[in-house]
Amino acid sequence: MLNFICDYNTGCHPEILKRLQETNMEPQSGYGADAYCESAARRIAQACGLPDAQVEFTVGGTQTNQLVISSMLGPLEGVISAGTGHVNSHESGAIEVTGHKVLSVPGHEGRLLASEVDDYVSTFYGDENHSHMVYPGMVYISYPTEYGTLYTKKELEDIKAVCTKHSIPLFIDGALCGEAIVFTHGNRPARFVGLKKQRGALLAKGRLLGVQFDVLFTDDLYFRIARNAIERANELKALLSSKGYSFLLDSPTNQQFVILEDSFYKSLSRRIGIEFWEKTDAAHTAVRFATSWSTTKADIEELKEVLDNV
Amino acid sequence: MLNFICDYNTGCHPEILKRLQETNMEPQSGYGADAYCESAARRIAQACGLPDAQVEFTVGGTQTNQLVISSMLGPLEGVISAGTGHVNSHESGAIEVTGHKVLSVPGHEGRLLASEVDDYVSTFYGDENHSHMVYPGMVYISYPTEYGTLYTKKELEDIKAVCTKHSIPLFIDGALCGEAIVFTHGNRPARFVGLKKQRGALLAKGRLLGVQFDVLFTDDLYFRIARNAIERANELKALLSSKGYSFLLDSPTNQQFVILEDSFYKSLSRRIGIEFWEKTDAAHTAVRFATSWSTTKADIEELKEVLDNV
Amino acid sequence: MLNFICDYNTGCHPEILKRLQETNMEPQSGYGADAYCESAARRIAQACGLPDAQVEFTVGGTQTNQLVISSMLGPLEGVISAGTGHVNSHESGAIEVTGHKVLSVPGHEGRLLASEVDDYVSTFYGDENHSHMVYPGMVYISYPTEYGTLYTKKELEDIKAVCTKHSIPLFIDGALCGEAIVFTHGNRPARFVGLKKQRGALLAKGRLLGVQFDVLFTDDLYFRIARNAIERANELKALLSSKGYSFLLDSPTNQQFVILEDSFYKSLSRRIGIEFWEKTDAAHTAVRFATSWSTTKADIEELKEVLDNV
Amino acid sequence: MLNFICDYNTGCHPEILKRLQETNMEPQSGYGADAYCESAARRIAQACGLPDAQVEFTVGGTQTNQLVISSMLGPLEGVISAGTGHVNSHESGAIEVTGHKVLSVPGHEGRLLASEVDDYVSTFYGDENHSHMVYPGMVYISYPTEYGTLYTKKELEDIKAVCTKHSIPLFIDGALCGEAIVFTHGNRPARFVGLKKQRGALLAKGRLLGVQFDVLFTDDLYFRIARNAIERANELKALLSSKGYSFLLDSPTNQQFVILEDSFYKSLSRRIGIEFWEKTDAAHTAVRFATSWSTTKADIEELKEVLDNV
Repeated sequence: MLNFICDYNTGCHPEILKRLQETNMEPQSGYGADAYCESAARRIAQACGLPDAQVEFTVGGTQTNQLVISSMLGPLEGVISAGTGHVNSHESGAIEVTGHKVLSVPGHEGRLLASEVDDYVSTFYGDENHSHMVYPGMVYISYPTEYGTLYTKKELEDIKAVCTKHSIPLFIDGALCGEAIVFTHGNRPARFVGLKKQRGALLAKGRLLGVQFDVLFTDDLYFRIARNAIERANELKALLSSKGYSFLLDSPTNQQFVILEDSFYKSLSRRIGIEFWEKTDAAHTAVRFATSWSTTKADIEELKEVLDNV
Repeated sequence: MLNFICDYNTGCHPEILKRLQETNMEPQSGYGADAYCESAARRIAQACGLPDAQVEFTVGGTQTNQLVISSMLGPLEGVISAGTGHVNSHESGAIEVTGHKVLSVPGHEGRLLASEVDDYVSTFYGDENHSHMVYPGMVYISYPTEYGTLYTKKELEDIKAVCTKHSIPLFIDGALCGEAIVFTHGNRPARFVGLKKQRGALLAKGRLLGVQFDVLFTDDLYFRIARNAIERANELKALLSSKGYSFLLDSPTNQQFVILEDSFYKSLSRRIGIEFWEKTDAAHTAVRFATSWSTTKADIEELKEVLDNV
Repeated sequence: MLNFICDYNTGCHPEILKRLQETNMEPQSGYGADAYCESAARRIAQACGLPDAQVEFTVGGTQTNQLVISSMLGPLEGVISAGTGHVNSHESGAIEVTGHKVLSVPGHEGRLLASEVDDYVSTFYGDENHSHMVYPGMVYISYPTEYGTLYTKKELEDIKAVCTKHSIPLFIDGALCGEAIVFTHGNRPARFVGLKKQRGALLAKGRLLGVQFDVLFTDDLYFRIARNAIERANELKALLSSKGYSFLLDSPTNQQFVILEDSFYKSLSRRIGIEFWEKTDAAHTAVRFATSWSTTKADIEELKEVLDNV
Repeated sequence: MLNFICDYNTGCHPEILKRLQETNMEPQSGYGADAYCESAARRIAQACGLPDAQVEFTVGGTQTNQLVISSMLGPLEGVISAGTGHVNSHESGAIEVTGHKVLSVPGHEGRLLASEVDDYVSTFYGDENHSHMVYPGMVYISYPTEYGTLYTKKELEDIKAVCTKHSIPLFIDGALCGEAIVFTHGNRPARFVGLKKQRGALLAKGRLLGVQFDVLFTDDLYFRIARNAIERANELKALLSSKGYSFLLDSPTNQQFVILEDSFYKSLSRRIGIEFWEKTDAAHTAVRFATSWSTTKADIEELKEVLDNV
């Protein structure tokens, strides 16, 4: 069945599997101290243009958010997030279980506004009235957001400026396949290996992560596979627009949110994999189509036929 | 360089890699709801002879201990462990970070004694004197232990009987490659998917775990590769004995603890990978040799030559 | 200086002090096992008309909220509160530090609406989509609210009905002086003495709490002193109304929220103690006047004179 | 009934009650910002000979240990304590519930030895082998210990020297009636009011603590009432010695541990309040006698008569 339900339903890129095979029998140190993790870290720092970056690999997204946020917050501090941010709503309380509050600030199609963050943080300083409140100790943004929207470069710079003004770190939760944590300027918390261990994020066979990222950041593979996902998403968008469907919002990413009549949604979802997002009114539903590195032009063609025949 | 430093320095068994390749492009549901996890769970329950077992897959050992122990303890309860047990001494406080105490009971070459566990637990019941103490809510044993020792079947049955008598669960931390949690009789905590998510243990591409365990429990691969590790360890033990080295204790597993003169240890460790274990006296050191599924007869031959020539 | 800044600026009711003196040298058991705690618990259960109630005494409000909420929530559960609820905004993250999320639902002058609570909770059941979210495991309301508003009996019954429908407990954070926790029907969590100890809420000289509550619930002292606070608040309200001041909202309790011109507020606050609440527009500020058991008619007279002469 | 069961079975010293009465109707700021807390803090700093000390008041002992230890430890750190230390064994896991491990080191009649602490801490530095272990971040000692023993000045200095050498704080859990936390040299953690609030240790009517300590540290009352407890304990010790009873250990404090024949213990405990401590052999039991500020010479006389007639 044709599947747009999410972007992690196939395995990994064949280049990665090929390299895992080539390196499988080499003895390498455990716990991320292998040659591939080292090489991958160097390549990622270079791709970011950050010579002083420290790069750490972990297994999953929730784990990464939990580890980074709990390591960088002080004991009375919380993390600012849009109400719709993953860490606030869809990670089973993984931040709170470490003893920290998520300070929810209203989002705009998933995005925080720099001015609103500034207002929120500003009230906390120079005022003893807040001694009974949780202090903002970090700003979290997802990029892309949970609505498939992006921040412009200007919007990111503005949020960064607010964080710098108040001396609190900005955490950008990007969407690498697997997780690489980039501490941009040598600001990795002390004893970070122990902190990873404590949160269950230290993989004995860390080479599995190292090889993966090493291949992704060789010959621009990471950017090439991302480009495929975006190009297919644009084709899908054009196709759905030409059929007259409307969109929940304008997304430039691999996630497209389309509004369908309920009866049509029901029929369609028997033929292809799509994800329920939310009811938009009594008779309509927004659904999410996601493309990935493995979506092909043929998949989009097949979708066209399905839409013609439902 | 010849390497006996631990049992996770090579990649995975070639059969697993082959199967990952064969299944790579199949679309499968995420978060452990794929066909391979389902099949692997069935095979493991069968291998355990437990028709009602519920099997869950996670990524790493510390994560698993943290998840299982924190899910099954009540709010005032701790977990009994030998002082040398992993959860007490070598997991960076991963149990305490969930709010629970590890109740350390003296071990015997890494093993708990049923009678001592019984004495410890018995004092807690029928006596209000203990209302200010942490109650024992689970017994944890590692199998094999951190010293490479094993419990006999009788010893295991005795510990299980003590647990049954006091109605507390027994958690056996085995050594599968990767982690499969076996709830033996339908006793998986409620909302376990959410608990996995909360502790960062829910893998989006869960198929990676499913395929792995599915292959391991097909045609007895798991038992065959375990047998190789043990057979090589026995050859290594015979070789070292024949050279006159003494052992820290008698280990029937893939870990062998050998006592070496310090100067010899120094020279040897420049030639092969071995792990420092502990100083035994001013002039001697115990080191650990570990074999694995990938250790070959040729490796043991090579070790013999190295020992002859150091 | 005349003081309306809060309701805990004087000591305790003289009857309590007198009784503390009378009982001071009697030997009594520690940790709440004294005769006065026992008697006070019985009187409170009777005053509530709840023969099966279990009553526990603790020292402070934040401590009580932390203890009760963390004891009654399951590991993946959070507590529903109005965004303005104490536990969400003014207790320094005391709930999150126990690992639980406060699930913030919009308030209406500090109050939750039963229908909105029902909508929120209802989405969680019969739907696997929520397995990555924090489940609502309790409803918290403050009574009176942080805005000095009250729920009507009908509103309380409606919220209780929603809780009963979903089988989750309702926690009413009332405003006794000191803290008495009333488990209404024998539903006190197991090992509660230990839980109190663990959260630092078990007072060795528990008699201090017992004597206090025992006196308060003898000869209706509790109701009589509450009545004084309300009567003085009504006089204060009438006085301020007659002077033409407007109110932020209509409060039937001992807290009155009055809107003042900024320059007048500045002058007034040099003469009497009042609490800044919030800016209502560029030129006005809402301030809180609080009366208590110790506010006298003479205090209100004095306030009248101050207002006439600022 | 004559009562030696513990030292908190009567109320407070009459001087304190008198002062509470005198100050009861004065309006004072809440949350520890009152004039009495300020004055008491000054007097305690002076009594300690520490001009830069910061003094904070809290309600109970477990709360204080939890607050101080969790505020001063880093995220991967634990607190060293004798195995018999309160924080390790009799506070319901109040340290672990904050996410930190108690690192148990063997005690000697309740005391830590400086050299053993040094050995323990020393292994952690300059060695990457410990990255999977919990680091020692503080040393906790109780003074007097749980066995009524004391450290000599030299022993305290030696432990302090070890702490200084490794740059970790030393926490002395003394036995004031109520709790005053003395940060000896301006080293109070930042935002400490918020931390108190978060752990439920911030008392709205903080004056109750301020008045108490203010009186205790006026005219040496604190030292005078302590002296009474010690003098009565010495008389009790002499009395029991003269009757031929033996002691579990030699205690210079208000706690005396006496070994009794089981049948005699049974009879005696029907006549006077004493606390079971531990079985010393099949036929004997060690019991604790505690004196306090309110124990009188007449009580010791009465005890003599009871012993003569049991």
